[in-house]
Amino acid sequence: MNKKAIVLLSGGLDSATSGAIALKEGYDVIALSFRYGQRHLKELEASRNVAEALGIKEHYIIDVNLSLWGGSSLTDATMNIPKDGVKADEIPSTYVPGRNTVFIAIALSLAEAKGAEAIYLGINAVDYSGYPDCRPEYLTAFQNLANLSSKVGIEGKSPQLIAPLVTLSKVEIVQRAIALNVPIEKTWSCYQGGETPCGVCDSCRIRNKALIDAGYPELAVVK
Amino acid sequence: MNKKAIVLLSGGLDSATSGAIALKEGYDVIALSFRYGQRHLKELEASRNVAEALGIKEHYIIDVNLSLWGGSSLTDATMNIPKDGVKADEIPSTYVPGRNTVFIAIALSLAEAKGAEAIYLGINAVDYSGYPDCRPEYLTAFQNLANLSSKVGIEGKSPQLIAPLVTLSKVEIVQRAIALNVPIEKTWSCYQGGETPCGVCDSCRIRNKALIDAGYPELAVVK
Repeated sequence: MNKKAIVLLSGGLDSATSGAIALKEGYDVIALSFRYGQRHLKELEASRNVAEALGIKEHYIIDVNLSLWGGSSLTDATMNIPKDGVKADEIPSTYVPGRNTVFIAIALSLAEAKGAEAIYLGINAVDYSGYPDCRPEYLTAFQNLANLSSKVGIEGKSPQLIAPLVTLSKVEIVQRAIALNVPIEKTWSCYQGGETPCGVCDSCRIRNKALIDAGYPELAVVK
Repeated sequence: MNKKAIVLLSGGLDSATSGAIALKEGYDVIALSFRYGQRHLKELEASRNVAEALGIKEHYIIDVNLSLWGGSSLTDATMNIPKDGVKADEIPSTYVPGRNTVFIAIALSLAEAKGAEAIYLGINAVDYSGYPDCRPEYLTAFQNLANLSSKVGIEGKSPQLIAPLVTLSKVEIVQRAIALNVPIEKTWSCYQGGETPCGVCDSCRIRNKALIDAGYPELAVVK
């Protein structure tokens, strides 16, 4: 039996690349996605297409409706998604309180139930939106918690949190994605709920700039 | 405006007592319960009755279906609930992988969105079922994670995890519940999905023994 890994698959470029890396490392991959009340539900359709394209056969999509209490422009339709460009040293309104903590906690549950030894995360902390729950020190603290929280942790077999992109620039992530045949055209990064990417939200801006800088302007959608 | 606290309210005796303590401390309480695929869904009805009896007006019940992957006799109907008594030094099959980590993560999201400064947990580590995610060192690790994970954490205003029962015996918890007028008869602890408590699962045994030892045998349901 192959070793197993859980891959958090949002449907975006980063998590698809993280999934491709887990597959290349030889893991049997179980994908995990979340319907958390996000306005860009389209990313779940993308996560299914990406999982299929990568040959991942087991894929859970779980409901955990963080929009019940909002607190973010991603989950509260009465707030606007910022479109004036990424601000340095500012946590934007698209920050969703507790989101990554909730997602990783659920991944730990799935990993323990399935006997998976790793959890792959698409988190990166170089060209990103400034979210506190994307930093390496956050992941270290979560690993410590994971080791204490579970039956497998007590047995010294806690799943390892692996963030293969955490120190890469977005251009380097694009290069890894291309090298691993990630179907970039099937991924979805835009925060808006439209039929096509808006081109001006932080997520579109960061993605498009990286695709252009890496030499793949034909993959960028800029309006 | 009063200070706010989130109270994790399972519908059982411990969480009801923890909620009554938060109210006595002067917090405006927001209750949080989970439909996580547990066979004893009756506890959610109890959580509503307890919230009403304690005068808690804001109560979220959120779906997060951990039974999608099972791994516990509480969430997998094909497994049996143990009924032969509490075993020392053994984690029982009623342990749900990642459950408390998922619950506390979701509570952190709610706390940040609502501006709550505390999260009250009914966890106790004296007379309990031996779950790893009920120990004080687990809570310390989670507090460390909470401080790093969020916008409010970075601002030094992370919600505090408070487990007022963690070092109390179950008899002491009953005594606190009585002193605070917790409606013990409205709480539900049994792991089985029956109409009345089974009396023989670990949760019933621990509860009944404590009620009898504390001098309230009329509140115990023993078959």
